[in-house]
Parts: sequence; structure tokens; C-alpha cells
Amino acid sequence: MTLDENWFTEAVPGEGVAFSLRIKQRLHAERSPYQRIEVFETAHWGRLMVIDGCVMLTERDNFLYHEMMVHPALFTHAEPRSVLIIGGGDCGTLQQVLHHPNVERVIQVEIDERVTRIAERFFPELTAMNGDPRCELRFEDGVELVRRTADVCVDVVIIDSTDPVGPARNLFGGEFLRQVHRVLQPGGILAQQSESPLLHRQSILEPLHRSLAQAGFSPPATLSFPVPSYPSGWWSCTLAGKACDVREFRHAAAAARAFPTRYYNEEVHRGALALPEFCRGVLGA
Amino acid sequence: MTLDENWFTEAVPGEGVAFSLRIKQRLHAERSPYQRIEVFETAHWGRLMVIDGCVMLTERDNFLYHEMMVHPALFTHAEPRSVLIIGGGDCGTLQQVLHHPNVERVIQVEIDERVTRIAERFFPELTAMNGDPRCELRFEDGVELVRRTADVCVDVVIIDSTDPVGPARNLFGGEFLRQVHRVLQPGGILAQQSESPLLHRQSILEPLHRSLAQAGFSPPATLSFPVPSYPSGWWSCTLAGKACDVREFRHAAAAARAFPTRYYNEEVHRGALALPEFCRGVLGA
Repeated sequence: MTLDENWFTEAVPGEGVAFSLRIKQRLHAERSPYQRIEVFETAHWGRLMVIDGCVMLTERDNFLYHEMMVHPALFTHAEPRSVLIIGGGDCGTLQQVLHHPNVERVIQVEIDERVTRIAERFFPELTAMNGDPRCELRFEDGVELVRRTADVCVDVVIIDSTDPVGPARNLFGGEFLRQVHRVLQPGGILAQQSESPLLHRQSILEPLHRSLAQAGFSPPATLSFPVPSYPSGWWSCTLAGKACDVREFRHAAAAARAFPTRYYNEEVHRGALALPEFCRGVLGA
Repeated sequence: MTLDENWFTEAVPGEGVAFSLRIKQRLHAERSPYQRIEVFETAHWGRLMVIDGCVMLTERDNFLYHEMMVHPALFTHAEPRSVLIIGGGDCGTLQQVLHHPNVERVIQVEIDERVTRIAERFFPELTAMNGDPRCELRFEDGVELVRRTADVCVDVVIIDSTDPVGPARNLFGGEFLRQVHRVLQPGGILAQQSESPLLHRQSILEPLHRSLAQAGFSPPATLSFPVPSYPSGWWSCTLAGKACDVREFRHAAAAARAFPTRYYNEEVHRGALALPEFCRGVLGA
């Protein structure tokens, strides 16, 4: 069949694959200083945010991504008190971090304030906890902020970025990862969104693992999980520790968590650590 | 963006979601007595088989589906010697079954012989083991064949069907599942393709679990895994045992398997058993 103008489509250049959602109407469109941001009302997936033509999130499936960007990292760290989020302007990741009672301080540094303002307006369920006194929103370049940050002062860094093109390119680079390693406390954890295991194993995941090793991290682990609205429907988050094993986590605490989740639980966490056979060897054990 | 005529698109009615692959050319199209079958050469996903407008398989990602339809079931059974495949005309499932050295006999019953003939011509890598003397291909109605089959004579039944509409509808029904239970030996295993956890939990998975319980099976387990070319990119296989626990499997044998896989391994098997939080309770532990 052919899709008419009532569909939003994201095609992946070079992979010959596209994902489409039927839309009722476009609610918003603007060009910020950094990128083009659109919001649609879809027929069956709730609201949809698009940046530079790529799906950022839908109301229906963003829980998969946001839960898996946060809870594995925070249940891997022994006692996460200070968290730094780079990117994450829609605040869905921030909200999941704030569910953790041992977190005392979260700084989110998003380069494009418009993403957050649009989220506040069109995705209020994601920004509902932004008034929590533990959190601070900054709108500036995360690479610069990390460079200015003191040594060994953060427990968990979460890189919740767009694809590694445009403003997010530097967030996958070796120099930035060395800076992240420097600001982490011993036992600290980095969680990096790391694209599709099927589409980006060679182009992104393998170079990322090499860069993490060169930056001084202990052997990383890539956790995979479904995100239907992202290319291939299969996504990943890579954890790397500063002198700690990211394949172990606080299993009992994860099982006893006092906040609601829709995808994450202690068995899902363990299961996400299982590497598909085609990734074994090239991405570690 | 809008996709031109160089893309094949499968849209899901009622879900407002579509998946597309860029195609180079259509290699084949016919209407069999049962359905319309097409084969395309895609730009980046190898060859594509389509039945009644729905993706059956691509060369690039069918390994995910076929490995997960077979190896969890066969490593759950204590010693699988006889296997019955219902559907599975492309022979990708059959091939994975034949990798297991303890299998002595496989009968595949596919209602539409044309699917197999087209697979032989356009997907020869899937049919390469069809000459194995342990296997027998029958082209008839699987529901009828099971009804005629003697009691307690099969170790594993794999239902590798199209969606539960058209010719496959009866394969999800209670009467058929009771017949499958009847023909299984004690300790026997049923593996049923069971659609998308995100899209079909209420419409298919929950009724299937109820039907399996009513048919006399021990508590079933739904394993989930990625299949990018199927709706939502997230798929499942439901295992149900005749007086046996399908959450346990021969872990050491799975780790020591002597055949190649690309997705399946013993950790992936364990991980696929982890139920997302939104399925806990409604789909068992």
C-alpha cells in the first residue's frame, strides 16, 4: 500500500527502512537555534515529538526507552546520590531518575531549551516532576559543562542524546568520554544511548566500546530492549563503570523498588544484559 | 517524508503504524489457492516474502524469528526426538529444528505448497536442509492432520503460522490446542508464535494463555524478542508444556550447542523469559 499525507514517516538513509505513524494533525512546528522541532497528534500512539525528521518519542512507547536509560544505571550504582543528564530535554529520563529516593541532586543540561518548553506544553506527563527541589535544569552545551566540572563529583552520568549527528556528535567522541570518566566518582556509572544493535553495531556500538575502553572505563555492557518507534524497533543503552562491573546490579533493591514501572523490572534488567550471539565477542562477554 | 513507489509498506489496520522497506524490484507474484504471495528484492534487507500484504520474512532479520521459534522449545524439552511443525512453509523453522542432533523425525504440515516452492526458488538458504532424511513435508490442513494423529506420540509441536486471520485463525482456537495437548507426550512442548507484546497483549496473548490453560497445559511462558520487519518490531513465542515447567531449560546443553546461531544463546533464552512489567500478572509470573 501507499501512505498518503495523513502519515508521518521517518526513513533511515542507507538502510532502506522506514517507520510511519498515522497522524490526526500537526500541533506545533518551529525551528529552534539548533534544530527543527514538530509535535503531532497521532491516531493510535498519542502525541509524537519529531526533531529534524526523526522520532524523539511517542506517548505510547517512550516508557520503554526512558525506563531503560535510567533504572539499569541507577540499580547498578551502589548508592546513586548525584546524577548528571546530558540532553534529555523532553524530561522523560529526568522523571525516571527522580523516582529513586536515594538521589539527592540531578542536573540536566540540554543544549536546546525549546525542547523542554515544548515538552512542558505538549507532554506534561513527562515534565510533571520538574518542580522537584532536587533537580536543576540548565540549557547549555553539555560538552562544555562537563569540561568545567570538577573531578570525581558525580555518581551517574546519563547521555540521553539524539543520534550522533548534528549537535549530539561530540557526545560519542573519545575526548568527551575521557571528561565524563574524570568527573565520575570511583564506582561511578555512565549510561549512553547507543542506537540499534541490528543497524548500528559496527558503525556506532563497536567504536563506542573502543572509545570507552580508551577513556579508562571498566568493560562496558550494552543492554538491548524494544522501542517500536525508533529505527528497527530495537534499541540499546551502553553502561560503563569507573572501576566497577556493570554486569552486576542491586537485584534485591530493583525487585523491591517503590515506584511504578511499565517495562523495567529486575528480571528484565538481567535479561537485557544478555548479548545476542552476533554481538558476543565484538561487544564483550 | 513521503515514500514513493519504490517502497513496500505494511500498515497495521487499527494501530496506525506502518513499516516500509525500499525495494529494487518485484521478483515474483502469484495468487495461490489460499493467499497472495509476492517476493521482492529489497535495497538493504535482501529478499522479502509477502503474503496477503504482510511481511513473512526478510533475508536480513528472519534469523531472529526462526531461532526463537525453535531453540527455546527444543532446549526446554528433555530430549526432543519427534517434532511437528504446523505452517512454516518457508522452511526456516524446519532448518533450525534439523540442527538439533537428538531430533529423529520432523513432520512439517503446511497448507499452501506454493509457499514452500517459492521459498525453494527465492530463499534457497532456508530450504537447503529439506533433503535431510529425518524430515517429511506434507501439504495439507494442519488442524485436520493433528485431529487424525494418535495420542501421545509427539515431543514438540511448533505452530509457525501467519497472523490469526484467514487460514491460520483455527490455529489459535481452544479446540485445536486441546488436540495438540492430546498428541503430545508427557513432558511435551508446544511453541506458538504469538504476535507483538505491545500491540496484541489483550487481543491475542491473554486469550491464548487462557485457552492453553483450558486445554490442559501447565502454566505457559511468553518469550519476547526483536523482529524489526514485523509490526512494532517486537515479537513473541509462547511455550506451553504438558505436565512440565517451560521456565526451566537445558542451560548447559544450550551453551554447548554444536550448531551456529546468530541471536540465540543460553543467556538470550533466559533473558527472553523475563516478562515486561506490564505483562506480569496477566501473562503469569
